[in-house]
Amino acid sequence: MSASVTAVLLVSCPDQKGVVAAISDFVFRNEGNILDFDQHTDVESNLFLARLSWNVDGFTLPRTAIADAFRPIAERFSMWFEVRFSDEMPRVAIFVSKLDHCLQDLLWRWKSGELRAEIPMVVSNHPDLRGLAGNFGVNYFVHTVTPATKEKAETAMLERLRDERVELIVLARYMQVLTDRFVAAFPNRVINIHHSFLPAFAGAKPYHQAHERGVKVIGATGHYVTSDLDEGPIIEQGVAAVSHRDSVADLVRKGRDLEKVVLARAVTLHLQHRVLPYGNKTVVFE
Amino acid sequence: MSASVTAVLLVSCPDQKGVVAAISDFVFRNEGNILDFDQHTDVESNLFLARLSWNVDGFTLPRTAIADAFRPIAERFSMWFEVRFSDEMPRVAIFVSKLDHCLQDLLWRWKSGELRAEIPMVVSNHPDLRGLAGNFGVNYFVHTVTPATKEKAETAMLERLRDERVELIVLARYMQVLTDRFVAAFPNRVINIHHSFLPAFAGAKPYHQAHERGVKVIGATGHYVTSDLDEGPIIEQGVAAVSHRDSVADLVRKGRDLEKVVLARAVTLHLQHRVLPYGNKTVVFE
Amino acid sequence: MSASVTAVLLVSCPDQKGVVAAISDFVFRNEGNILDFDQHTDVESNLFLARLSWNVDGFTLPRTAIADAFRPIAERFSMWFEVRFSDEMPRVAIFVSKLDHCLQDLLWRWKSGELRAEIPMVVSNHPDLRGLAGNFGVNYFVHTVTPATKEKAETAMLERLRDERVELIVLARYMQVLTDRFVAAFPNRVINIHHSFLPAFAGAKPYHQAHERGVKVIGATGHYVTSDLDEGPIIEQGVAAVSHRDSVADLVRKGRDLEKVVLARAVTLHLQHRVLPYGNKTVVFE
Amino acid sequence: MSASVTAVLLVSCPDQKGVVAAISDFVFRNEGNILDFDQHTDVESNLFLARLSWNVDGFTLPRTAIADAFRPIAERFSMWFEVRFSDEMPRVAIFVSKLDHCLQDLLWRWKSGELRAEIPMVVSNHPDLRGLAGNFGVNYFVHTVTPATKEKAETAMLERLRDERVELIVLARYMQVLTDRFVAAFPNRVINIHHSFLPAFAGAKPYHQAHERGVKVIGATGHYVTSDLDEGPIIEQGVAAVSHRDSVADLVRKGRDLEKVVLARAVTLHLQHRVLPYGNKTVVFE
Repeated sequence: MSASVTAVLLVSCPDQKGVVAAISDFVFRNEGNILDFDQHTDVESNLFLARLSWNVDGFTLPRTAIADAFRPIAERFSMWFEVRFSDEMPRVAIFVSKLDHCLQDLLWRWKSGELRAEIPMVVSNHPDLRGLAGNFGVNYFVHTVTPATKEKAETAMLERLRDERVELIVLARYMQVLTDRFVAAFPNRVINIHHSFLPAFAGAKPYHQAHERGVKVIGATGHYVTSDLDEGPIIEQGVAAVSHRDSVADLVRKGRDLEKVVLARAVTLHLQHRVLPYGNKTVVFE
Repeated sequence: MSASVTAVLLVSCPDQKGVVAAISDFVFRNEGNILDFDQHTDVESNLFLARLSWNVDGFTLPRTAIADAFRPIAERFSMWFEVRFSDEMPRVAIFVSKLDHCLQDLLWRWKSGELRAEIPMVVSNHPDLRGLAGNFGVNYFVHTVTPATKEKAETAMLERLRDERVELIVLARYMQVLTDRFVAAFPNRVINIHHSFLPAFAGAKPYHQAHERGVKVIGATGHYVTSDLDEGPIIEQGVAAVSHRDSVADLVRKGRDLEKVVLARAVTLHLQHRVLPYGNKTVVFE
Repeated sequence: MSASVTAVLLVSCPDQKGVVAAISDFVFRNEGNILDFDQHTDVESNLFLARLSWNVDGFTLPRTAIADAFRPIAERFSMWFEVRFSDEMPRVAIFVSKLDHCLQDLLWRWKSGELRAEIPMVVSNHPDLRGLAGNFGVNYFVHTVTPATKEKAETAMLERLRDERVELIVLARYMQVLTDRFVAAFPNRVINIHHSFLPAFAGAKPYHQAHERGVKVIGATGHYVTSDLDEGPIIEQGVAAVSHRDSVADLVRKGRDLEKVVLARAVTLHLQHRVLPYGNKTVVFE
Repeated sequence: MSASVTAVLLVSCPDQKGVVAAISDFVFRNEGNILDFDQHTDVESNLFLARLSWNVDGFTLPRTAIADAFRPIAERFSMWFEVRFSDEMPRVAIFVSKLDHCLQDLLWRWKSGELRAEIPMVVSNHPDLRGLAGNFGVNYFVHTVTPATKEKAETAMLERLRDERVELIVLARYMQVLTDRFVAAFPNRVINIHHSFLPAFAGAKPYHQAHERGVKVIGATGHYVTSDLDEGPIIEQGVAAVSHRDSVADLVRKGRDLEKVVLARAVTLHLQHRVLPYGNKTVVFE
């Protein structure tokens, strides 16, 4: 709520003694006051994962110098790390097809200030949602995709994304499978919403599958996209009770509310640098 | 809450005009006051399914004559039907292996009056839980099962179940797969608790599978056992949130609370004649 | 999902024998096929409450004649009743102040066909949300309210509502208390969303109260407005987990998602004639 | 899951720079490997609260020397702190009246190893649950309480608790209000389960109140007992959906499942030293 800017440091490295001490000493020596320190040790993979934040005000290092100053510590502990700032606005592209509920929801959250990002574009394989994007003043680009043109269409999209320095892609019920080449260009930078509680009902038409099976609970899953369809690291899941009274159409309707909330939550967690993927899982520092 | 006895009528038949009128007229003509009337029409299979109850006090037909009196109506509409009474105590056998949480929970609910049934026996392939059954004054029978002895063991069990006029079997984390022959002897009369939100993580070690996959939600499923393992009609499902902090042991622990509640609920719904299986699904009249 | 029109009959009367038979016989005699029959008997107040529906196609009575034809039955059993049709579009006015999330959500659901109603107007005591209403093509009327002008403002509103034949008012975070006179003009026809799990945190600033008290769960309540503030019959409630990490601003943000869903659900249930208020409670036929 | 012992340090102090660095440096200098570090800063009260744990194996300080070695740091930062070890077994007394579900549940969890504690006694104002305690081999003491004898009874209880070095009291549906004197002897060391989602339905007969009000959600609250009845710091809350079909007896039955789980969870969190009360709230380090 405060206007003060915070620095966020994300770290992962082999688990070993002294990591917390070295990191917190770095912040302290430079006059930072740690606001949050959250840590997880994955015992099976012997991995230390952490997220901490501190106020930039009063910190003796200028923002641009922090990463370089931290590098010796990172090297000592064989760390991967990332420094981010709360006033950065990551650039996000939203991909859609014809369904509007997730796009509507994301744009509303963005406009209301809940989703802190810049949204330079909505990309679609259909023209249908141009008006909705327009209501929020966002550019809308149509890239038609057919089996024959997919490669070419993706090349054009990738170019556009690079031109606009997009760093996160959100698939808001985008009805096309991305090629491995595309996914590889945005590793752990493409978030999809799948309309089931994965791994149940992976693949197409999950609400039909759920109705067919007669489950009493439906769900939605926000996950990073990898080259294995519906198999990427899960960020967030939500569920809702259903009954024999619910037709497929009812499941679709109830599911929409889940999809909106779960996708928005996954995107928000990512934008706040609270998600650390490792292997095929995520640590979510809430 | 009241001590008065109610009759419960379960009905299913092809959907057609006049079914509700015919049923309710039958109750009315015999001076019954309908307490609950719940109905579902499955449009896809053109099936009418209903459950109604009325006070036996003041009903002009004696209890034993109700089914015969209703039969002409049933024949007119090609109905399957069942008449039950709230003071009947269905005879239930609980099958266990070594895990005690579901057995403990069911017996406590039974003793507290929440589970209205008679429990003439606990059956197990291990002697471990004999003491627990004894605390509640319930007979405990061990039928050791190995691949070589399975057929014979099941034959002995079936005999015992028949001798004791058991009409419902509850698999309370029973770690053996029943043969088709056994299942066929109790069609839609064997309730199992599976420790995942089926169809996710069917098969063995679902908590290990869930941990491996990195899901953010775990679940439990109460279902009727059919010859297709983990594929029977679902009666009830429950879920709980988990995170990266949860080890497999934590999932097991959290899962126990789910399993107890979901199994108890599935059994209670069955005992109150609130579950109508049809095809591979259930209607649950709550 | 089908295009066929259904009639809905809502009934309440003193509990007595033969009510179900009389009602279902009425439908049957006129060649109707009952699709849903849902009934509840409130034992404490000896009240029979029911909702049933049937296809209008093939029903021998014309729609306009149904109520008159049913009246003799209603009189025999001292019933209150109401006949509605699934293709009617009740006329709804949405009242707002400055917060846009509930209005945005309701209008989106309306446009998407989820909320079957006509929305001739949004009424507000502030001009702020005119653009949002305009995006959806809905008229927006500002009625400024001050203690001095309240009576007069409400008189003007009531006139406008009457002119537009509005039958349901939805308070979508409308920040004014309505006078008894206003409420009396729309008995059980004003639905409000309160941003707490009532009766906890009735009154002003519930999220501040919740934060102050340190609760681990927040909620939202959709209810009919009566002359007792925050005391009207509850239609729907939803809850969400919170923790010590959540500031008041976080509660407000999490609460918005609850408010939207709970209000939409309460309004939908009302529009589908699934809510029967009695005393200070509701029966919700789902 | 591992057999290795961990030390847990709980800390609270005025928020200031260098606290995390000083604490983690202390652990590092003594060759400890931090397993978990969890921290919360309450901005409104300018309070730093933290919980960390490390392996005792390889730590250069003997267990008994840790607190003294840490004291200088504590004094520098004006800290309150506590050092605990994962192999300590806190001594817990459970207070009950006549209802057995929470006692049954707690004793089962204790026996199954889920609740790591010693339970030297169950205390009651009624003899009813003596057999249940006996099943688990736990002593059962009856202290009859009447208005006239309350002071004297509590004195006897306090003596017994002191003799048995009890450090946590769990009120498992104990139907007596404790005097201020008693509560003062166990500050933030008495955990109660209240059968509503406080602050709704404080006081007596919450399920009757909930039924009367017609809520669609019921709850249970685990909280520390203070001299203000039902007003102490909340540790954990749970909720469940209910409907018009639920009688008071149904609410009681559904509520039992909530009460068991919420109380067990509150007690477990306390026993794992995951709860830091401050003011009238708690931080729960999960």
